[in-house]
Amino acid sequence: MLENKNKNSTKLEDIGEFSLIDALTKDLKIRHKSTIKSIGDDAAVLDYKTKKIVVSTDFLIEGVHFDLSYMPLKHLGYKAVMVNLSDIYAMNANAKHITVSLAISNRFSLEAIQELYSGIELAAKQYDIDLIGGDTTSSVTGLTISITALGEANLSDIVYRDGAKANDLIVVTGDLGAAFMGLKVLEREKEVFKVNPKNQPDLDQYTYLVERQLKPEARKDIIRLLSDLKVRPSSMIDISDGLSSELLHICKKSKVGCDLYENKIPMDPQLISTCEEFNINSTTITLNGGEDYELLMTVSQKDYPKIKANPNLTVIGYIKEEKAGCNLILRDESSVELKARGWGSKED
Amino acid sequence: MLENKNKNSTKLEDIGEFSLIDALTKDLKIRHKSTIKSIGDDAAVLDYKTKKIVVSTDFLIEGVHFDLSYMPLKHLGYKAVMVNLSDIYAMNANAKHITVSLAISNRFSLEAIQELYSGIELAAKQYDIDLIGGDTTSSVTGLTISITALGEANLSDIVYRDGAKANDLIVVTGDLGAAFMGLKVLEREKEVFKVNPKNQPDLDQYTYLVERQLKPEARKDIIRLLSDLKVRPSSMIDISDGLSSELLHICKKSKVGCDLYENKIPMDPQLISTCEEFNINSTTITLNGGEDYELLMTVSQKDYPKIKANPNLTVIGYIKEEKAGCNLILRDESSVELKARGWGSKED
Repeated sequence: MLENKNKNSTKLEDIGEFSLIDALTKDLKIRHKSTIKSIGDDAAVLDYKTKKIVVSTDFLIEGVHFDLSYMPLKHLGYKAVMVNLSDIYAMNANAKHITVSLAISNRFSLEAIQELYSGIELAAKQYDIDLIGGDTTSSVTGLTISITALGEANLSDIVYRDGAKANDLIVVTGDLGAAFMGLKVLEREKEVFKVNPKNQPDLDQYTYLVERQLKPEARKDIIRLLSDLKVRPSSMIDISDGLSSELLHICKKSKVGCDLYENKIPMDPQLISTCEEFNINSTTITLNGGEDYELLMTVSQKDYPKIKANPNLTVIGYIKEEKAGCNLILRDESSVELKARGWGSKED
Repeated sequence: MLENKNKNSTKLEDIGEFSLIDALTKDLKIRHKSTIKSIGDDAAVLDYKTKKIVVSTDFLIEGVHFDLSYMPLKHLGYKAVMVNLSDIYAMNANAKHITVSLAISNRFSLEAIQELYSGIELAAKQYDIDLIGGDTTSSVTGLTISITALGEANLSDIVYRDGAKANDLIVVTGDLGAAFMGLKVLEREKEVFKVNPKNQPDLDQYTYLVERQLKPEARKDIIRLLSDLKVRPSSMIDISDGLSSELLHICKKSKVGCDLYENKIPMDPQLISTCEEFNINSTTITLNGGEDYELLMTVSQKDYPKIKANPNLTVIGYIKEEKAGCNLILRDESSVELKARGWGSKED
């Protein structure tokens, strides 16, 4: 999992900013007619014609959001793009363009930054995105990545956080908690490695969890699916901080309450077995573990026939009137107040 | 000049990310009808109708781009916005929207970040900009600011770097070199302060230079002026790295050469006197000192009557055929090759 330290190594200070940008962007493909001007001027120029522009931006900071001792640089590049595209998809919009800014300390070589970029380019290729600009600078310590994603949508298709109505279904895509447990597994391996650097990690039984942490996928497919099913959610958000935090955001913005059913929350069998091994409550992990990048939405009951047979979509509860409060219905049918990180915290 | 350390101090870890964002954005004004959705969802939504979208992004990193021992936080916020707007104006476009992302170490208080934000808001107000989103996170060390600016223009108005033609006039706005010498003055005061902290700096004779460093203005007024004069430059770039570097960019992109006249480069009298005091060649400073955020453009000779009487615009040379090379014509009429930082470097 660790970086190969034996690769060719070109010092960044030997090549300068413009040569670095040239080296990184020389093979860049332009995929969209809407990209009128890409990298190489003071700014990029885009043409979304009559569509609305959807814009989101995110920071990823070494030591805060990632640890390069278990995050390969190529995966980091890929993930940094996913984190941002996920926000565009959460608006029910199509992501089209990104800018990528890097602040890089001098411990990174040109080859290391090219490895990071190869992950960014792979993500751009797989998600049909044009990389149109950015900024590359030195940093005092570590690596900082700032990405801004732009997308387009018809106004009538855009879904906000504030549209949930009483009696709507609460629906989530995929399964939850795996990315967080993947991180726990990697952190444990790092501790083992510190004690015995010759130990080869055996991650076979955690492959799904580790992949969810290291190579998350933004749910572009769901935006297409909703369009095909002719379902427009009443509200939507992406799950970056954990299910409970995101559901509480929707309820607060929409001025509604909710009943969330513990026994409906989708979990992968590997999550359940690994939570048992770590002696952690798996529901806590799904509620509070972040970085799944699944979509949480509310859907009118009249659309239930359209979604009920779909394996990508799971109904996990109901929106209620605001006065009902936000509740988690436990397996024994008792009810507790739903809190963000109320059952523990990410740092648990 | 230094930060007031006696202000109220609220620790950031005591309030959390969402409360911080609320505290910073609660009084935010929306100025444009084109802002359909601002802060508070997964992404912002903009409507530029049939106009093209112009996008630029920049990093500002503590210890690399700014030093808080002489840069007050409010000024830093203002300058961070200017740096980005300048890139949009350099496309002959109108800046409309910004996203602001901050990575903040725990040595900063809520009040310090509010001070930074007050500068961002002042810039937004004075330049008629909507702040539409961003990301706020903790950092391991220091303060990092990432801003993305968006603007709009008709395609026929947009000016790139690659349109300069032989015989075009080379035109620059304002005067050059002052921001760099302002930095030199502040750095000297910092050294004096280190030796004797009770020493009160006397900056009266350097006010213009210091203001150019601490509170630069992006040339929005020039975009309006060019429109009023009905002049569309053949190429344009903003001067962030120094005149020679930017002019060489234009020549390289446009596949042309140039003659730049040393005796035409506009300098403020304070720059000349301070360069004498520091025993530095003032031409070197105008060629290689960065951060002026003036606009460098090329203009067809047929437009000369429209610009010749304007105090904001100075003709400093001519575009030549590529084979003529890029030349600096010295005061004695001898000619030397124009090089980026060829007469010294920023670190001199």
